Amino acid sequence: MQDMPASKAYRLLEAGPIVLVTTSYKGKLNVMTMGFHMVVQHSPPLLGCIIGPWDHSYKALRASGECVIAIPTVDLARKVVDIGNCSGDRIDKFETFKLTPKPAQAVAAPLIAECLANIECRVADDAMVDKYNLFILEAVRIWTDPDRKERRTLHHRGDGTFAVDGRTIDLRERMVLWKQFQD
Amino acid sequence: MQDMPASKAYRLLEAGPIVLVTTSYKGKLNVMTMGFHMVVQHSPPLLGCIIGPWDHSYKALRASGECVIAIPTVDLARKVVDIGNCSGDRIDKFETFKLTPKPAQAVAAPLIAECLANIECRVADDAMVDKYNLFILEAVRIWTDPDRKERRTLHHRGDGTFAVDGRTIDLRERMVLWKQFQD
Repeated sequence: MQDMPASKAYRLLEAGPIVLVTTSYKGKLNVMTMGFHMVVQHSPPLLGCIIGPWDHSYKALRASGECVIAIPTVDLARKVVDIGNCSGDRIDKFETFKLTPKPAQAVAAPLIAECLANIECRVADDAMVDKYNLFILEAVRIWTDPDRKERRTLHHRGDGTFAVDGRTIDLRERMVLWKQFQD
Repeated sequence: MQDMPASKAYRLLEAGPIVLVTTSYKGKLNVMTMGFHMVVQHSPPLLGCIIGPWDHSYKALRASGECVIAIPTVDLARKVVDIGNCSGDRIDKFETFKLTPKPAQAVAAPLIAECLANIECRVADDAMVDKYNLFILEAVRIWTDPDRKERRTLHHRGDGTFAVDGRTIDLRERMVLWKQFQD
């Protein structure tokens, strides 16, 4: 996997793909499925996400202050749903779902080799966790696989159905106010 | 347009479509394009979104405490980009972009007749606005057009390119932990 600037996290997340979140706590890895997340700001690159006490990953995230947001593609659709419908307090999800954890660089939480991109994150602000289970994360490293052929992500409609990425519309030339954010 | 329960807002927004946001302030309507938003919780239905002082709609949202989140489809792609690249302090965007404002029921901000769905929202919490420009909104009414043929939404990759909804994958039968949220 190749690294890309952490400031480009919005390129991966603004489109609203369903994601996987990994944590590492007391030497135990876990992974969960997450649909409630957004970009908060470009610089420094902050993200918002909802992870609650009902998620086994919640304790690991609060204690370690670290996670990885991994972006799966359409070939992983069933695993994405099944990962979201069981709990890491009972099973080793990496083993059960045959996902390959790879060491991250800045955090203890693992990358997922089978994903299109992995965003290493640190908790930047947990002031809204008690009220809304809303974590503010800072993206610190991003890894992508530029040679990967399957790049279509999944967008969860909240009921177990997903829109798969279809065609791309390129309107970059009309982004006159936003030129500073483009390569 | 038909109403649907406000509790179903996540069905429209979890998938991460680019949206339009309307406001009404001192009798003047405005509309902006927004890509930074998420679902915060199911019940009551809370949403998070980023609208900053650089947006002309910011003042209207803070003063009125109300907005409408409208979901455009692929046929509106150019308008969505152009609306995001000009400011309501200089032009009447409803007139310029030939959008039809329709009265909402619970808020003064207008619905957009040309959109697939419209979510009437009230600001539920502005405590995170000063630090992150993060508004917590409560969805109070939803209107959709069930007879509309074009239903493909747009997912902004942050640079003026968009993924259009492709095929749908239906994995509802695997959502064992989430059955209570399904119809």
